Amino acid sequence: MIIQSPYLLFLGDAVDPLAAKVAQGIKDWRPDACVGQLRQPGCQADLGIPDMTVQEAIDAGAKTLVVGVANRGGVISESWLSVFVEALESGLDIASGLHNLLTDESKLVEVANSRNRQLIDVRIPQVEYPIANGKPRAGKRCLAVGTDCSVGKMYTALAMDKAMRDAGRASSFRATGQTGILITGDGVPLDAVVADFMAGAVEYLTPDNDENHWDMIEGQGSLFHASYSGVTMALIHGGAPDALILCHEPTRTHMRGLPEYSLPSLTELRELALTLAKVVNPECKVVGVSVNTAALDDAAATALCKSIETELGLPTVDPFRHGAERLIAELK
Amino acid sequence: MIIQSPYLLFLGDAVDPLAAKVAQGIKDWRPDACVGQLRQPGCQADLGIPDMTVQEAIDAGAKTLVVGVANRGGVISESWLSVFVEALESGLDIASGLHNLLTDESKLVEVANSRNRQLIDVRIPQVEYPIANGKPRAGKRCLAVGTDCSVGKMYTALAMDKAMRDAGRASSFRATGQTGILITGDGVPLDAVVADFMAGAVEYLTPDNDENHWDMIEGQGSLFHASYSGVTMALIHGGAPDALILCHEPTRTHMRGLPEYSLPSLTELRELALTLAKVVNPECKVVGVSVNTAALDDAAATALCKSIETELGLPTVDPFRHGAERLIAELK
Repeated sequence: MIIQSPYLLFLGDAVDPLAAKVAQGIKDWRPDACVGQLRQPGCQADLGIPDMTVQEAIDAGAKTLVVGVANRGGVISESWLSVFVEALESGLDIASGLHNLLTDESKLVEVANSRNRQLIDVRIPQVEYPIANGKPRAGKRCLAVGTDCSVGKMYTALAMDKAMRDAGRASSFRATGQTGILITGDGVPLDAVVADFMAGAVEYLTPDNDENHWDMIEGQGSLFHASYSGVTMALIHGGAPDALILCHEPTRTHMRGLPEYSLPSLTELRELALTLAKVVNPECKVVGVSVNTAALDDAAATALCKSIETELGLPTVDPFRHGAERLIAELK
Repeated sequence: MIIQSPYLLFLGDAVDPLAAKVAQGIKDWRPDACVGQLRQPGCQADLGIPDMTVQEAIDAGAKTLVVGVANRGGVISESWLSVFVEALESGLDIASGLHNLLTDESKLVEVANSRNRQLIDVRIPQVEYPIANGKPRAGKRCLAVGTDCSVGKMYTALAMDKAMRDAGRASSFRATGQTGILITGDGVPLDAVVADFMAGAVEYLTPDNDENHWDMIEGQGSLFHASYSGVTMALIHGGAPDALILCHEPTRTHMRGLPEYSLPSLTELRELALTLAKVVNPECKVVGVSVNTAALDDAAATALCKSIETELGLPTVDPFRHGAERLIAELK
């Protein structure tokens, strides 16, 4: 599964900016890959890039229409479908992370087949992944692990990857979730992979590479989250990281979606993640902490990072606020 | 997925007794569910139960033909198919754990549909499992965890379940693999469940129960096995065990299928499994050790168990050799 860029970002009739957060993520992290946005009447989101029709996007070089908006009511509406059909007929592929699959829409399948275009549902694994073999691979790998789900692991890996490349170092962001895959155009939708093949899918995603090349692997779930910890485990054992970054969101009062569960401390996370990582890579180190301080003001954010840094003895930053330079300085 | 018993065990043209080990397991653990065996010319396995034709089995009450033999060359042979067709036409369901699916054989599907019989491929999940909610459930649960894969976790859980029921205590063996499912007629094929739903599938398998009822959950993989550790993790967090049994095979020189990996010590397994189990069940305890001593003579087996018992301070037995009574005595 490789999604051809550049993209036309489809925002449809997004009810608010949050509904278009996938498009926002693509625009933030791959601005060069976005020729424009397509908005329909009533759209309440705006990425600040040129509004384009399908034909204008094609004239500007677009290869794929990417559905960057969440749909309402669990169906793909008629007004969306008419744009998708026009896009296929005009020569674009379509990529989507919606729960409703493009390939479940018979009209889209028919047009895509007749025009020889691709419908790419990134929630569906497109590859038969192998069973993990646990063998060491050349090159280096960094994995973000969290005290909880949705604490900023993807953002951290993307920010570190960008800082690496800005510094002229060899790095690849390795996507393991829908948004990450749409951002990079490639990856493994790990939560949709069959249990026996999870770790093998992560090995497949992070193959042998140059000695100094770093894979920045997008984390999923949390070792302390009862619903998804098995996915996190497969990332640690399949990814065989050389470096771990601990990710945390300080205002969370309980584990996401599990009101009975409190969050672990960063020290507990450090100890458990490192113990597990050393099973496959005895050289693994925990090298830094990434704190999502979006809910704090500048002074509180800086104070919190300083306090964690003192307690754990690890470089601690919010990569959005402070940059990821201090984290990548630990990748040696 | 519930497989109707009693069974006619199909041994086909098994090349040796090992090829019929699934049938052997069913006969060993559910002798009451087996009316007979069906062997074809050249069959080199014998369960020591009556040989029967399809019709004789039906006359003896059989409801399902269970494929208890591994096939050769990755195809279901013509000679097997003719028996399967006869079974369906005569009124039996068919259940199988083969990689080759019954439902991929168009002739079988056609006959099963026309006769309203079931084709049950136990490798394929038959249920849309929920995402785990991590909520405490009534009743008690015991999970076997191993230093490696294939060290006797299923056998241990089956032996403990039988010892519990022999002692008049409430217990259910909860199958999570193909052989276990064929033995009990029910369960979750965990290695074939999609990642996001693994822990939820285990919660589904071990629901609320009477206060004194114990689920004996079949373990899978190992926390220390790079290929399958995510499945083990989902069992620990979905199963929320009150008691853990450590399982070990003393002659293993490296992790199964991973020649670069040595086995962890039982102490390392105890510490890691308990840390993870306490995330969802803070009351969890490690209560005993089950050693597979098949490769040792009586004196060596007894000496090894005694030595482990002294080192770990936990009751240590080979349930096949010494019975499971000392293990279930720890389930309170």
